[in-house]
Amino acid sequence: MRIDEDDTRRIDTDLLKILPLGGLGEIGMNMTLFGVGEDWFIVDAGVQFCDASMIGAERMVQDLDLLDEYRDRVRAVILTHGHEDHIGAVEHIVGRLPVPVYAPPFVCELIRLKSAEYGSANKPNLIPVTPESTLDIGRVQVRFIRVTHSIPDCHALVMRTPVGTVVHTGDFRIDLDPMDGRPFDTEAFRRIGDEGVRLLMADSTNAEVPGRTRPEREVLELLRERIEAAEGRVIVSLFASNVHRVRALIDVAQACGRRVALVGRSLNVYMEAARRTFQHPPPQDLVAPAHIERVHDPKMLVLCTGSQAEPRSALYRASNMDHPDLRIHAGDLVILSSRIIPGNEKPIARMINNLARLGATVVHERVAKVHGSGHAYREELLELLQLVRPRTFVPIHGEYAFLRAHGVLAESSGVEEVRVLENGHLLEVGPSDSTVVEHVPLTFHYVDGPLVGDAGELRLDERKRIAWTGVVAAHLKAQRGRKRWTVHVDIQSVGCPTLEPGLLDAAADSAAEQVADLPIEASRKELESTLVASIRAFFRRRMDRKPTVMAFVDLKEP
Amino acid sequence: MRIDEDDTRRIDTDLLKILPLGGLGEIGMNMTLFGVGEDWFIVDAGVQFCDASMIGAERMVQDLDLLDEYRDRVRAVILTHGHEDHIGAVEHIVGRLPVPVYAPPFVCELIRLKSAEYGSANKPNLIPVTPESTLDIGRVQVRFIRVTHSIPDCHALVMRTPVGTVVHTGDFRIDLDPMDGRPFDTEAFRRIGDEGVRLLMADSTNAEVPGRTRPEREVLELLRERIEAAEGRVIVSLFASNVHRVRALIDVAQACGRRVALVGRSLNVYMEAARRTFQHPPPQDLVAPAHIERVHDPKMLVLCTGSQAEPRSALYRASNMDHPDLRIHAGDLVILSSRIIPGNEKPIARMINNLARLGATVVHERVAKVHGSGHAYREELLELLQLVRPRTFVPIHGEYAFLRAHGVLAESSGVEEVRVLENGHLLEVGPSDSTVVEHVPLTFHYVDGPLVGDAGELRLDERKRIAWTGVVAAHLKAQRGRKRWTVHVDIQSVGCPTLEPGLLDAAADSAAEQVADLPIEASRKELESTLVASIRAFFRRRMDRKPTVMAFVDLKEP
Repeated sequence: MRIDEDDTRRIDTDLLKILPLGGLGEIGMNMTLFGVGEDWFIVDAGVQFCDASMIGAERMVQDLDLLDEYRDRVRAVILTHGHEDHIGAVEHIVGRLPVPVYAPPFVCELIRLKSAEYGSANKPNLIPVTPESTLDIGRVQVRFIRVTHSIPDCHALVMRTPVGTVVHTGDFRIDLDPMDGRPFDTEAFRRIGDEGVRLLMADSTNAEVPGRTRPEREVLELLRERIEAAEGRVIVSLFASNVHRVRALIDVAQACGRRVALVGRSLNVYMEAARRTFQHPPPQDLVAPAHIERVHDPKMLVLCTGSQAEPRSALYRASNMDHPDLRIHAGDLVILSSRIIPGNEKPIARMINNLARLGATVVHERVAKVHGSGHAYREELLELLQLVRPRTFVPIHGEYAFLRAHGVLAESSGVEEVRVLENGHLLEVGPSDSTVVEHVPLTFHYVDGPLVGDAGELRLDERKRIAWTGVVAAHLKAQRGRKRWTVHVDIQSVGCPTLEPGLLDAAADSAAEQVADLPIEASRKELESTLVASIRAFFRRRMDRKPTVMAFVDLKEP
Repeated sequence: MRIDEDDTRRIDTDLLKILPLGGLGEIGMNMTLFGVGEDWFIVDAGVQFCDASMIGAERMVQDLDLLDEYRDRVRAVILTHGHEDHIGAVEHIVGRLPVPVYAPPFVCELIRLKSAEYGSANKPNLIPVTPESTLDIGRVQVRFIRVTHSIPDCHALVMRTPVGTVVHTGDFRIDLDPMDGRPFDTEAFRRIGDEGVRLLMADSTNAEVPGRTRPEREVLELLRERIEAAEGRVIVSLFASNVHRVRALIDVAQACGRRVALVGRSLNVYMEAARRTFQHPPPQDLVAPAHIERVHDPKMLVLCTGSQAEPRSALYRASNMDHPDLRIHAGDLVILSSRIIPGNEKPIARMINNLARLGATVVHERVAKVHGSGHAYREELLELLQLVRPRTFVPIHGEYAFLRAHGVLAESSGVEEVRVLENGHLLEVGPSDSTVVEHVPLTFHYVDGPLVGDAGELRLDERKRIAWTGVVAAHLKAQRGRKRWTVHVDIQSVGCPTLEPGLLDAAADSAAEQVADLPIEASRKELESTLVASIRAFFRRRMDRKPTVMAFVDLKEP
């Protein structure tokens, strides 16, 4: 239902508008716009990392051009927590939208450390917020509730709006006994639910997974048993952002007399952010990476990056015998204490094979309980729904199928109105109903080194096409005679299989013949199109492919 | 240990040589050479399908050039069963090695049906073999034992050789009550074990998975319950080769009053091969695909291809609203009764999302027990080891980590000698010991449409590189003057992001300037290298990338 424009004007300032720009249809690049009247704010600004099937870009971000349209109305960016799929696009938006960025203290420190790599125009103005703070943006007041996840310092948002209370969970799971002693704040959610919640937006990442997440203490207990039982070295790769697991493993190692080394730059970045935020004392007696090979005691624990087989990560390089400090020895126990992220299965499998070739025993989440997810499973999602009892529910953060599964779960729990939105669906929320008033077309942006642009600007389709077809460059010299053409064609190619010797010469000869057969009055344009068509047809006949042809025509008139 | 050549000559004819060419280090492209003296044979000839991260090839096969070296010694090809990873390379080897192909009757029929698409030089000479047959190849006698898997008519091989009995399982699982009433022949394996087995080679695909495979009858019972309970249409996508599941589902549907349609060409190919082999009567009362939309009764079962989201498959096209006959309706239940093959997770997830967007409920192996693997799990592998009790064990068919896990399992079961080989490891087996005598370097081949060649011949690296860097073609016209150059540069590009307007002109101007600055005596070669270097440096400065440059130089002397 679309409301007449005049009507919209009248009631607009009392409605809450919600426009998801990323994260509803994929795991990654989370971002949602919220607005009442002329006052808007952005919740989260994440990237999505491209997998091996993407050629030409490393990362994907939201429709940055669309954000330009909101430039004069956006008052703030609010970040729920410090994972890259929630903060990785900050560098790309603060240049375009010069507004303050509100984030938990740990996230502020993290971005400060990372922003050394941002362009100078892109330094964010960071303002720490805590569950004690409130933030007024026009007629909306935002408060923060502590939630548990797999990185320190995570918030859900409670927004008091003219249409009622809106709860946005961020990423969460329900952990009542986390390592940092700051449990999921069940009571806060219950209280807000008792007061009445107009709309709940909740993390759907694991909406298809039955049961409850494995408590972090259980994961650590299992890791402790494995580490204690191991006779040789133990190498654990994990997400550097999982600061509490890193710290707990250091304690485990030291308690059982193992020396510890941290390998991988990002481990130190997150540890430093935690030190600055929580005054964590830096771990003592670490072995410097350069000294690992000098430690002859087999009782050692190495914590490292690389659980996703990222090409420059420590474990990946070690698996290829290409790390300056970390070498894999026969008998090492390697534990991937992390999720195998979809899209990374093949690179991770290759890394595991290489580790096995070097004589390591490799344990991962598919064969042992060495990881616990940070995203609530179905029973926790149901518990949240029952605490909050919203009138309307919008599942967020997930593939479309997960959003839908979460929607079905909410319906079964008694929620009256479930709205399964996609990116670009503009939802208008009134006091008692909600309507998708527009499907805003979105054009995602891609990051390739220093370049940021949409798929067309970065020529992503064209790049993939030339990889399949190859490219031919042709130079035609044609002299128009009185009755006939004098013609010479040169051809070069790149990315074209040329299994038969002399293939390029044959293509040039065939093109020259066809051009020479043109009527003597043919135009330069006709020469060029005959040249290109002839080359494409030649390759089509010989190898069932039509390469992209770039042609130069030198036409000499008599 | 490498044996002196003279010694080798002497004892050679009594040794068994085994050279795996594919499948030991990956799931796919299985092939192993066996030889005694001058008489060799090939077991299996499979392909591996490339995943979305591979640009420039659809399929991967073994080192076909190496096979040429064995041309005069190979007497036969023996196929264990009809999956593509065991028969898909037959078309590529029979042209090079004109030897008979021995296979179970179903496989012969299947290849006959498929070979319509093979090149005319590649029609295999097919000879059906059964557990009643024996086959003599030089001093080796080969017999066949029925095993159970996820396609009809599967054999293990029992080879009587001068060094003792060698057992090769092919792909298998232990199913004592399969749908076709032809159970895994436990007694045959026990008997052979009792007689003494020199060497066992066994399928390692699921060597990391604890427990036993889910019996097919249990899978079918669960599918039956879901189909009976469904109120609307049910669409089941599955591997077309799983003929017994297809037939059983047709029976289930008809028993509960559902009309059935088969959509997808390969379903009919496998059904036809089964009809020819087993005289299966063709299913009655099928709905022709073109008539599906005319059936108004919601009680319908559609069996279709596309469980791996292959771009031309029925379910994939339907998920994109792009299939001529099969449309997804809101309320449809879609069941992916198949494994999610590693590397296909992302395309399958996209397909599931699109099916959900069209209103279907999608069920797959990650959320319900709608598939059972055809490859033995650890308990079955252990059972086989205990039946056969070989002196030496070689794990086959799997990623390296799986081979190693299978090797560890065999050691724990009491096998004296475990050899974890990789492709290209030439194993010499004597009566009491075995030695890897050579690591034969292998160069896999790739298939891209009509082209077959190694990665270099197909320019696979070059193709990927140009996709990342883009390609520039440049045409330089240079006139050598008495003191200075007259220079003009034209530039075209493909696959280069050109976010700034006028970038190509600027690149051409910059190159022209640098060429004009060359000494007046510069050679054509110097002009060309300056042109190329200048363009690459320009793009490096502007966008941190160095495109591939193809240059034409027109040099006019005074």
